[in-house]
Amino acid sequence: MSEYKTFNADEAMAFADEHSELFGDHSKLTAAEFDDANLNLVFRVENDKGTSLIVKQALPYVRFVGESWPLTTDRARIEAEVLKMHRRFCPEHTVEVRYFDPVACAMLMEDLKAFRILRNELIAGKKFNHLAPQMAKYLAHTLFFTSDFVMSSEHKKAEVVRFLNPEMCLISEDLFFTDPYCNHERNNIEPSILEKAKSLWHDDALKAEVAMLKADFLSKPQALLHGSLHSSNILIDDETCKVFDAEFGFFGPIGFDVGCLLGNLLLNYLACPSLHDAEDAAEQQAFLLEQAEQLWQQFSELFTELMNRETQDPALENSLYQQRFLRQVFSDAAGYAGCELIRRTVGLVHAADFDNIGDAGKRAGCQRSALKLGRELIMQRADLNNISQLLNLVRYQQTG
Amino acid sequence: MSEYKTFNADEAMAFADEHSELFGDHSKLTAAEFDDANLNLVFRVENDKGTSLIVKQALPYVRFVGESWPLTTDRARIEAEVLKMHRRFCPEHTVEVRYFDPVACAMLMEDLKAFRILRNELIAGKKFNHLAPQMAKYLAHTLFFTSDFVMSSEHKKAEVVRFLNPEMCLISEDLFFTDPYCNHERNNIEPSILEKAKSLWHDDALKAEVAMLKADFLSKPQALLHGSLHSSNILIDDETCKVFDAEFGFFGPIGFDVGCLLGNLLLNYLACPSLHDAEDAAEQQAFLLEQAEQLWQQFSELFTELMNRETQDPALENSLYQQRFLRQVFSDAAGYAGCELIRRTVGLVHAADFDNIGDAGKRAGCQRSALKLGRELIMQRADLNNISQLLNLVRYQQTG
Repeated sequence: MSEYKTFNADEAMAFADEHSELFGDHSKLTAAEFDDANLNLVFRVENDKGTSLIVKQALPYVRFVGESWPLTTDRARIEAEVLKMHRRFCPEHTVEVRYFDPVACAMLMEDLKAFRILRNELIAGKKFNHLAPQMAKYLAHTLFFTSDFVMSSEHKKAEVVRFLNPEMCLISEDLFFTDPYCNHERNNIEPSILEKAKSLWHDDALKAEVAMLKADFLSKPQALLHGSLHSSNILIDDETCKVFDAEFGFFGPIGFDVGCLLGNLLLNYLACPSLHDAEDAAEQQAFLLEQAEQLWQQFSELFTELMNRETQDPALENSLYQQRFLRQVFSDAAGYAGCELIRRTVGLVHAADFDNIGDAGKRAGCQRSALKLGRELIMQRADLNNISQLLNLVRYQQTG
Repeated sequence: MSEYKTFNADEAMAFADEHSELFGDHSKLTAAEFDDANLNLVFRVENDKGTSLIVKQALPYVRFVGESWPLTTDRARIEAEVLKMHRRFCPEHTVEVRYFDPVACAMLMEDLKAFRILRNELIAGKKFNHLAPQMAKYLAHTLFFTSDFVMSSEHKKAEVVRFLNPEMCLISEDLFFTDPYCNHERNNIEPSILEKAKSLWHDDALKAEVAMLKADFLSKPQALLHGSLHSSNILIDDETCKVFDAEFGFFGPIGFDVGCLLGNLLLNYLACPSLHDAEDAAEQQAFLLEQAEQLWQQFSELFTELMNRETQDPALENSLYQQRFLRQVFSDAAGYAGCELIRRTVGLVHAADFDNIGDAGKRAGCQRSALKLGRELIMQRADLNNISQLLNLVRYQQTG
């Protein structure tokens, strides 16, 4: 391909066939477009034996908005390179990119056909005991091995540049830390919670904390983040979790990835009583809290072990420093989880966990809880000593 | 010039003549090399009327060590660009670069012939009441206007790349945060304080704090730092301070520049009783504490005013956040000042303030005080509420 051109189904098939030997000769291929992708063109290309691959191409604009919101196609390169890097450090839980074409801004990926989107599964009340341990491993490995503990400062500086991603970062900066805290036209606020949303705009104590979290997002390149680790970017089956969709990746604060996932578990937790009958809701909530607890516990154990065993910079080998580092990651994660709850309630991009609640009154109740819990997580993050205290706050919030 | 070649005096003259109209036609030029430059070739080029310019050329190695320590000549570009950027925001106190040649890695600068090196003046017991106010202005303006308060995130990311400076940063990382805290061959430790130096290597509480300061130096690109703002990189006359030698510049923690200067005032403070008679020493020490106090007070007032008036990111306009930001800069500055005291005592590069003390016993006493004060500044930095408390620690240290 000599210049960028948007794929149609035939071109997606040709791309998949040309860059993979998976289909063999004389395959009869079909291509089906996914119409729920927010930003990109995504096709499943399949032969008549059911063997398939995914073709993902970046469009030069935001797909669900249209050409009026242009967006760099360089995000495809970032995504392919983040996934490649994360796969190097955690192949078990990172989707495999088979080929990337920098001109077409398109990649060929393994098709995890039998996997489902984690968010949908949680909404349906499914429980997976392997979720927390596997995601803890993904987070610990990908974040540790791209941090100052391991990378030489010269190498890391070069990697920060390779993953700069300014346009995608700007979207996150705006949607997470700016829009929800002012009267911004991008916000998406249901009338029933407008007064609650407005109170955010004048909450100077909260805005001071959110500014700190934003400043870290802007200027704390600790490790190569996935950058958008919510439950729609995790695929799951009965045995395995796989992370995909890494186009928001960049070097940022480690707590952001951890907090994003934690926040999405909590969003679903708050929605449970409105999505299921009382008994199922209680069970699902218990499962979610258990997963949240394990996620942090196992992440922190693995990260501690890695710091202890694999640190390359002698100045960072000090165990007291390492404990404090992890303590700070925890506090950051609590804060970013709070930001996720708030921006998914009043910001541009909602979560299906809430939007699927048909009863407007119940939905508004969940949204109010999310704003309240989000605020508490942000405000109290430095005082929360461990995941149990954080989860007590969640329990209290829901009953309070 | 089509390829890099080390200047001799004639070539330095030709370079100055070609790229400046200052000398006019048919000037009779002479060139004198400065032999006290640590890293670079520096010439004063002068005509017969006494008009002069400075030619500074980066050598591909560390001048005072030799070709065995190679060093990127890209530092000349960084230096010229840092000075240009800082001059944009504080022309009064930044030396003027007239021309930069990226092939020769050489720049032509104004010659501040009547100015003297601040460190030498302080050692000689000179007092300058304009030192603190002017350096406070330099720090506040250069650091604020290159921070997230003003620069858009996209622009700042691009600037971080332009000023990446990995090789020079590595030198600072090693000399400030690693070498002094282990038995490193680069260290320069006088036998009389060897036991004290060794105690640093096993001081885990201290090393944990130094690791935090190093981690911030590695991964907290808050603003475009000078990167080496000690008293030999400041020129002074009876009216004005001018900053030069910015080849260590990069985007880093704001507290580093502030702390570096503060640490150098404190180094001189500790040396005073060994450099002057009792009465002069007391006067000079009072002057230095007053300057240190004013430096922080005026820096923080100016920075607060700038945050209040010139912040471009609405999310960072919150005044509570701004107060906390500055509080954190203060704590960082105290820590980096402590690092400067320690690394100038046991690390590779000492300061003349101590080395000029002829009496070995007195010199050792100063060095011991510097290690002790340095440690206290690092350990107590989060608990110091203001500059008065910091200076009480200094006073106590000296009498204690």
